[in-house]
Amino acid sequence: MREGHLCQLLGMNCNTPTDICFSFTGFQARGGLTDHHTDGWGIAFFEGKGVRLFLDPLSSIQSPIADLVKRFPIHSKNVVSHIRKATKGGVSLENTHPFRRELWGQDWVFAHNGTLSDYSPALNGNFLPIGDTDSERAFCWMLQEMRQEFGYNRPSFEMLFESLSKMALAISAYGPFNFLLSNGERMLAHSSTQLSYLVREAPFSHAHLKDQDVDVDFKDLTSVSDRVAIIATQPLTDNETWIEMPPGNLWWFEDGELRKVSKTAHPPPKI
Amino acid sequence: MREGHLCQLLGMNCNTPTDICFSFTGFQARGGLTDHHTDGWGIAFFEGKGVRLFLDPLSSIQSPIADLVKRFPIHSKNVVSHIRKATKGGVSLENTHPFRRELWGQDWVFAHNGTLSDYSPALNGNFLPIGDTDSERAFCWMLQEMRQEFGYNRPSFEMLFESLSKMALAISAYGPFNFLLSNGERMLAHSSTQLSYLVREAPFSHAHLKDQDVDVDFKDLTSVSDRVAIIATQPLTDNETWIEMPPGNLWWFEDGELRKVSKTAHPPPKI
Repeated sequence: MREGHLCQLLGMNCNTPTDICFSFTGFQARGGLTDHHTDGWGIAFFEGKGVRLFLDPLSSIQSPIADLVKRFPIHSKNVVSHIRKATKGGVSLENTHPFRRELWGQDWVFAHNGTLSDYSPALNGNFLPIGDTDSERAFCWMLQEMRQEFGYNRPSFEMLFESLSKMALAISAYGPFNFLLSNGERMLAHSSTQLSYLVREAPFSHAHLKDQDVDVDFKDLTSVSDRVAIIATQPLTDNETWIEMPPGNLWWFEDGELRKVSKTAHPPPKI
Repeated sequence: MREGHLCQLLGMNCNTPTDICFSFTGFQARGGLTDHHTDGWGIAFFEGKGVRLFLDPLSSIQSPIADLVKRFPIHSKNVVSHIRKATKGGVSLENTHPFRRELWGQDWVFAHNGTLSDYSPALNGNFLPIGDTDSERAFCWMLQEMRQEFGYNRPSFEMLFESLSKMALAISAYGPFNFLLSNGERMLAHSSTQLSYLVREAPFSHAHLKDQDVDVDFKDLTSVSDRVAIIATQPLTDNETWIEMPPGNLWWFEDGELRKVSKTAHPPPKI
């Protein structure tokens, strides 16, 4: 199994609404041009409390919607994107990530990279999958467990984070479970086999895409207080320092910076 | 109050996946060109069990996403669209119709035309609004009541229809409650003050838009077995016979034809 041939994740978490055009350009190229991810793609942009969700079972290189996303600069503080290589579940709109559900009056958005084997948790009916992927099933189970544990009032994010890091570990027993999860305020990233991140902040410099010969100078596009965290299955640029996220931890990003790493599996790296 | 200055609804229910480009062209013109609906718009396309949902708080005439929808022929058996004139709730993505929730492992999509006054039903937390419109509140309440009445297994659609027609009537006591509701298999339309529909079937002929000088000959675009029901706040064409839907009833469309009209308020018209 070559990981490069599985799904790819891309997440962005910022302290000010930012467009993802540059990173999406490199990411999109992996949907059929420089890599073999041809079973659909999707991207979710939080905008205030709302979400714009674009899904397409077509390869992202063929998709007119991907073209729109690349050219139309949607500004967002939290973005979750996914390019899919189908392993469980057919190629269809309902099996296309990111998935989305409402809990506690907030939209939650989830995308997963990896394949879970023999994963069929008991679902009580509060959150049920629409498609037939292992990923949506895992998402529904996590929402169900959050509702079960905390009831109808949202707890502190600290408590949620603790709870979710245990769930992530439990699900990882069924197979690779790299995921991105956001409620529009925070971004959680779980590295189970492969995930990297970087934080861009002042002084900004230029960055060069790995997958296409595109260069951008962030100095021209940012203000000095901007801070942006990018999380991706594989580094997207070849002249910046990406931090590999060791397997087994849940990572909490907020306002473009790393806030916390779970202690459940491995000793956390220094923040 | 001139109804023409409130929101506009557009629904399509077909027996075979059909694109809505023609009707959407006329409908979109009402978002700022021939009418005063400038507080956003949205459209949901069912595709299998999945939904493509495009939302934009911008006026539909300015929106690059509306432009994509108009030119990119997405084929669907159930489409719900809405152009908004904000009456309750600010102009934002989370207040933009259609709204969407999962119930019984199906996506449900809802759009509302009208304004409810002093409407604050008790919500138990199973379905909570993300934005602050009366419309999303009504949608959440209906889902909650369906779950409450029928539990975790979806009942027959007959039973759902009976139940929803009573709910629609109860909510109408708070103000105009024209709505479209679909689970991807059927389309329900509730006329509370203003709604019309027509069914296009063989022999097909040409149709001419009211709001723009656009003409289409459906003979060239359809096969003889196609059947399409279009439901709209106001007739979209000026050379076809639209049927006005008298206030107080819930209408059930399936496979492009009218299946049933509720008997709760007024004597139903002959089908």
